[in-house]
Amino acid sequence: MSDNASPLQKHRYTYQPRVPALFKSGKVTVVEHGADPEVPVDAADIKALFPNTFGKKVVRLAEGPGEGLKSDALTIGVVLSGGPAPGGHNCIAGLYDALVAANPKSKLLGFKGGPKGVIDGSVREITAEVVEPYRNTGGFDIIGSGRDKIESAEDLAKCCETLKKLGVQALVVIGGDDSNTNAAILAEHFLAQKTGVQVIGLPKTIDGDMKNEIIESSFGFDTAAKTYAHLVANVCRDAMSSRKYTHFIKLMGRAASHVALEVALQVQPNITLISEEIKVRKLTLMDVVAQIVDMVVKRSEAGRNYGVVVVPEGLLEFLTDFEALLKDLNHIHKTEEEVLQSYDTDEDRRQFVHSKLPAESSKVYSSLPDDIQHVLLRVDKHGNIPVSQLETEKLLIDLVKLRIHEQKRLGKFKGSFEPLGHFFGYEGRCLAPSNFDADYCYALGQTASYLIRAGLTGYTAFISNLAAAPEDWIAGGVPVTQMLNMELRKGKMKPVIKKALVELDAAPFKQFEANRSKWLVEDAYKFAGPIQYYGPEEVSGVITETLRLERS
Amino acid sequence: MSDNASPLQKHRYTYQPRVPALFKSGKVTVVEHGADPEVPVDAADIKALFPNTFGKKVVRLAEGPGEGLKSDALTIGVVLSGGPAPGGHNCIAGLYDALVAANPKSKLLGFKGGPKGVIDGSVREITAEVVEPYRNTGGFDIIGSGRDKIESAEDLAKCCETLKKLGVQALVVIGGDDSNTNAAILAEHFLAQKTGVQVIGLPKTIDGDMKNEIIESSFGFDTAAKTYAHLVANVCRDAMSSRKYTHFIKLMGRAASHVALEVALQVQPNITLISEEIKVRKLTLMDVVAQIVDMVVKRSEAGRNYGVVVVPEGLLEFLTDFEALLKDLNHIHKTEEEVLQSYDTDEDRRQFVHSKLPAESSKVYSSLPDDIQHVLLRVDKHGNIPVSQLETEKLLIDLVKLRIHEQKRLGKFKGSFEPLGHFFGYEGRCLAPSNFDADYCYALGQTASYLIRAGLTGYTAFISNLAAAPEDWIAGGVPVTQMLNMELRKGKMKPVIKKALVELDAAPFKQFEANRSKWLVEDAYKFAGPIQYYGPEEVSGVITETLRLERS
Repeated sequence: MSDNASPLQKHRYTYQPRVPALFKSGKVTVVEHGADPEVPVDAADIKALFPNTFGKKVVRLAEGPGEGLKSDALTIGVVLSGGPAPGGHNCIAGLYDALVAANPKSKLLGFKGGPKGVIDGSVREITAEVVEPYRNTGGFDIIGSGRDKIESAEDLAKCCETLKKLGVQALVVIGGDDSNTNAAILAEHFLAQKTGVQVIGLPKTIDGDMKNEIIESSFGFDTAAKTYAHLVANVCRDAMSSRKYTHFIKLMGRAASHVALEVALQVQPNITLISEEIKVRKLTLMDVVAQIVDMVVKRSEAGRNYGVVVVPEGLLEFLTDFEALLKDLNHIHKTEEEVLQSYDTDEDRRQFVHSKLPAESSKVYSSLPDDIQHVLLRVDKHGNIPVSQLETEKLLIDLVKLRIHEQKRLGKFKGSFEPLGHFFGYEGRCLAPSNFDADYCYALGQTASYLIRAGLTGYTAFISNLAAAPEDWIAGGVPVTQMLNMELRKGKMKPVIKKALVELDAAPFKQFEANRSKWLVEDAYKFAGPIQYYGPEEVSGVITETLRLERS
Repeated sequence: MSDNASPLQKHRYTYQPRVPALFKSGKVTVVEHGADPEVPVDAADIKALFPNTFGKKVVRLAEGPGEGLKSDALTIGVVLSGGPAPGGHNCIAGLYDALVAANPKSKLLGFKGGPKGVIDGSVREITAEVVEPYRNTGGFDIIGSGRDKIESAEDLAKCCETLKKLGVQALVVIGGDDSNTNAAILAEHFLAQKTGVQVIGLPKTIDGDMKNEIIESSFGFDTAAKTYAHLVANVCRDAMSSRKYTHFIKLMGRAASHVALEVALQVQPNITLISEEIKVRKLTLMDVVAQIVDMVVKRSEAGRNYGVVVVPEGLLEFLTDFEALLKDLNHIHKTEEEVLQSYDTDEDRRQFVHSKLPAESSKVYSSLPDDIQHVLLRVDKHGNIPVSQLETEKLLIDLVKLRIHEQKRLGKFKGSFEPLGHFFGYEGRCLAPSNFDADYCYALGQTASYLIRAGLTGYTAFISNLAAAPEDWIAGGVPVTQMLNMELRKGKMKPVIKKALVELDAAPFKQFEANRSKWLVEDAYKFAGPIQYYGPEEVSGVITETLRLERS
């Protein structure tokens, strides 16, 4: 690959990530963090499920003689899990470098294609040569990724077999909340089975929803959010240059709206919808449509027949009425799918659905554009309505258009409304990590190496004090079980890491709330620009607004 | 705006564009270029239409005492025309700086909202204070843009009136081929009317289709193409990381595929369709679909159930069969629209259309997905089928999907095919110009000032030797009439600048053609990365592959 690299790629290979000063000293000890561990809400349940790993202490790395750190040659496995996020390759590079620095005979084995690779024993050895062209690059392609979980007794057994056969002493799982939960399950299983294999997780997700008091941010969020901010800002500038279109931009974030909120703070588009607020305020689809129509009218009256609306991917499921409709429709699909699909035409199916829906949901269903009504008449192979296929931005466009035409007919709207829809998602998950993410991920990988050498298992590595310079970052590990609570998943109570949603009383949302009215009618757009790897520190080293407001 | 600027914006305000060494000396004379002017194919017609401006010489700026350059205070107008392109603000900054350097009492007036602003006399004076926060920024928002042309006798008269009232001695038109054609019409008109107002055009378009032997590239192409290359590369890396999706990416470029070709050369996706080649080779929609299906099958056999296909926006109109279908359908719409729309349902309309279409077109029409068939049953307010509303990438996805399902049914395809569609367009038109475009545009603006001071009119400013360092660039002007030919537009022969299409025997296409087979099954993706304004020269100063292959 390196023969084939772009000029920027070649230069990025040689970037030396900045890390906590401590790491450079080489004298590292693992000590108790000192922070009182939060007691999980469902402590009793969690303790019962994780008898061997529950109740551990948060740890941090401190300067010291390195007592108790293994220095013999280790064989470590690493696996990437879930959607790619910028920095994954640097986690692996940091882990590799720290391992061979401690003992040049240590080996790093990458499991290919995600957790399935651990089950199947599909391996690529990460050597110095292998890791070189992946340093500071985007993507998860060094070993690939996958969405499987290792949960069934059969998979757990196969996994033990693989690790035993390969002589793996510890496994590093790079993934989001579910994958770190899976890491806890593995750690517990390995302890129960006395296999001796340790498990360490690293916190990944561009959505930014794996964070808590100790884990300040998941990796990849910085790079992805900056990329979307850049693109949204470009569209804002286009809007105010062409003065013609109202852009509806959907951004990634099914569960949490951190990405949308970060983009709002960086770019100041006219409207940014935040799913969590919509849920708390019990807003309906028509409330949201009315809010956008109001913006279109007000801006038009101010001579601005253009604008930008940012929409989080998961919006629909947070709208009171739409959520109820989905529940009611799913009930019909579950109980009367055969009857429903026995009708010849979609028109007949719609009639049937209306006859079964409660009055409120029936009204909401009728208000939707035809193509959306069609999608809702079908389920996917898992028996669920394919909500992710609904093009939320287009749904909003259609509904706003209807209202605007109505206002026009009534003579209440004299302007023009030309909507355009966009979805920014896949283009932000695999670019080369920002300096922040490159440094952060490299330090996370190194930290995993120290936690392993300290004999720990069932921990997620963390770096804190992230709003400071990398040299001042604090590294450590938090027991995964401490982050678990019990949630209903597919009809069963399961231990999961609670997703961090946007908190309406935290600084980032407060900042947004205090200022957004100024962004509605005026053009207050800010232009983040593309991520810079070079140049002045306040440009190339800038952190997200979310992190700045939460932590500095 | 500057109070509200991002860190990168603030730093970009202070960037000092690099310009031809000559400009720094301050000693500039306008001399004949010396290159034999190409004689337009339709010279006789052009000469008849442009008796006052036809037959002028190409000029260049040379070191000299500045004889014949006006040094009195001038009032100059500037107008932005058409879609925004990165660097427009720097054209204005370069023009302003050069004007006031020659005489601090000179004034620059920006016409607001495009050519309509000249007709209406809607003006914003560009002062030092006004221009400051627009330096090296993206967008056309300093004065806005518009798509009107000044052509009718009434508009021409109003335009003369505005310019006279404001005391404007010269007008700079920043736009693409049509706008520069319009500049020629204005220049001719003003000479005929003896108003004394000069007109100078600057070559803008992200599509890169305004170029010729003398104009090496239109401005904005560099920044926009790099931005799309970055985004396409991110999707490629995502594809090879997730190993799950086949991405169909539509890129801007209605008439010419320079953007798609540049992205192909920078990123090496698996397939890039080039409209010009498709036209020359007389390929049909089904040929193109077969080509993509073949790629999907071959990659799947190699264990790669993923890939990336790049599609130029204008593709459909270049496909022999689809072009014929459009022609036939447009004929039906023109001659039997009333009958067609008198039917109650789209099904009936389709039957009617089939009864009228020639057998070949009827077959093509049937082969299209339902929603596309629907779109083709309607015309826009100008009586045309809204081709731009056809989502080409989705059409290809639907057709490839049908074929793949068929192959699956026959047991010929065992892999998986999960397509995703994207359109990258509006996000690439308004970001801060790359260093190349920032320098190029600033130099273009300065050049316009020299051409005006030399008393020239009906010229498009150019900068050549663009593959060299800016200090070695050559500046000058080419008579617009020399670039004109006669083309049929809306039923009338009109003088227009011929769009530069991708030439199949030129170096960029040759390079693509010689290598693309290697990119089909292997993952040969290259990752351009986001535009860098700082850092090593080979990163921050890199030129497009198109320019490098054509000119260095």
